[in-house]
Amino acid sequence: MAARLDFWFEFASSYSYPAAMRIEAVAAAKGVAVTWRPFLLGPIFAGLGVTDSPFNLNPTKGRYMVRDLERTCAALALPFKLPSGFPRNGLLGARVAIALDPEARPDFAKALYRLEFGEGADIADETVVAEALRRAGLDVEHVARAADPEVKQALREATEEAKALGVFGAPSFLTQRNELFWGNDRLEDALDWALKEAAE
Amino acid sequence: MAARLDFWFEFASSYSYPAAMRIEAVAAAKGVAVTWRPFLLGPIFAGLGVTDSPFNLNPTKGRYMVRDLERTCAALALPFKLPSGFPRNGLLGARVAIALDPEARPDFAKALYRLEFGEGADIADETVVAEALRRAGLDVEHVARAADPEVKQALREATEEAKALGVFGAPSFLTQRNELFWGNDRLEDALDWALKEAAE
Repeated sequence: MAARLDFWFEFASSYSYPAAMRIEAVAAAKGVAVTWRPFLLGPIFAGLGVTDSPFNLNPTKGRYMVRDLERTCAALALPFKLPSGFPRNGLLGARVAIALDPEARPDFAKALYRLEFGEGADIADETVVAEALRRAGLDVEHVARAADPEVKQALREATEEAKALGVFGAPSFLTQRNELFWGNDRLEDALDWALKEAAE
Repeated sequence: MAARLDFWFEFASSYSYPAAMRIEAVAAAKGVAVTWRPFLLGPIFAGLGVTDSPFNLNPTKGRYMVRDLERTCAALALPFKLPSGFPRNGLLGARVAIALDPEARPDFAKALYRLEFGEGADIADETVVAEALRRAGLDVEHVARAADPEVKQALREATEEAKALGVFGAPSFLTQRNELFWGNDRLEDALDWALKEAAE
């Protein structure tokens, strides 16, 4: 069995940014195939009675998150700039991502994350999403596809699937046997687990 | 300047358990001296309007924490058993820890963590704290010192100090220049930062 891992990412999630930027290289080095799965945390948080980012509800934790990401991104030689409004609304980006062919998703997602957390852009803005498509070498007409009822439904179903799998934060990694790992710093553990499953 | 790190731990905190069990070996290998600092998370959470463990307020996250700790402890060859009531009240343990000579603290803390998260014991029980003292080769009469007004005051002051330093969870690690790292999985980063500061 080939080793596989599902990478569940949310564009509003700050820690999904370093995970998205490094997962391809780390997974390739270990020989694990990755499927990029966009979803929304908002509906999952809402089901738990949580109405805002944990980093806003607890400002001390929010300040720590910024410092921790500055350190994490510096170690990866990635630019980091928290958007002026946090969290940004990732709905448009997630719809565009899910509408794309799976093989086009990583480049678009990485371009959008870099605009958001590397340059501080507002990803709820259609022109920013279009710029991400452009940087990924994709047709900017994909922005319009976000309004398709089937695309909206696909994102709703992906979010329901994530919730049913026990996902409660982002980034999350799920092996083929549904072993869940949460957080950028669990990426290596998740890949190793996927390899272990594939060897069994 | 010799490299130093403050290790802020709370006996109720499940992730403080693997941190406590491994910090001495990891720090010694890197050549960093560690100061063990007991404190209470309850008053810090209360100041944020949080009345229970985040793992109880979000049961999905709570289930993940148990699974994540099972994996973490298995990798360290540590027994893991969540206490039947979680979180346990760590007040008595923290008072005893702060009353001990600093050099006696690590062995007592490790013994109490093993009773709590390795064997599922209730550390709010005086006989359990006495057993931890016994296993650490210390006088069980130290249990009575928890009632000393100076000991209570010392723990209040340590908790205020942690809060003023931006500590919002446990385990937390602070370098001499107050660089904060949160979580068992940040221990190596914290030690490396302490070394970097010492070399400057």
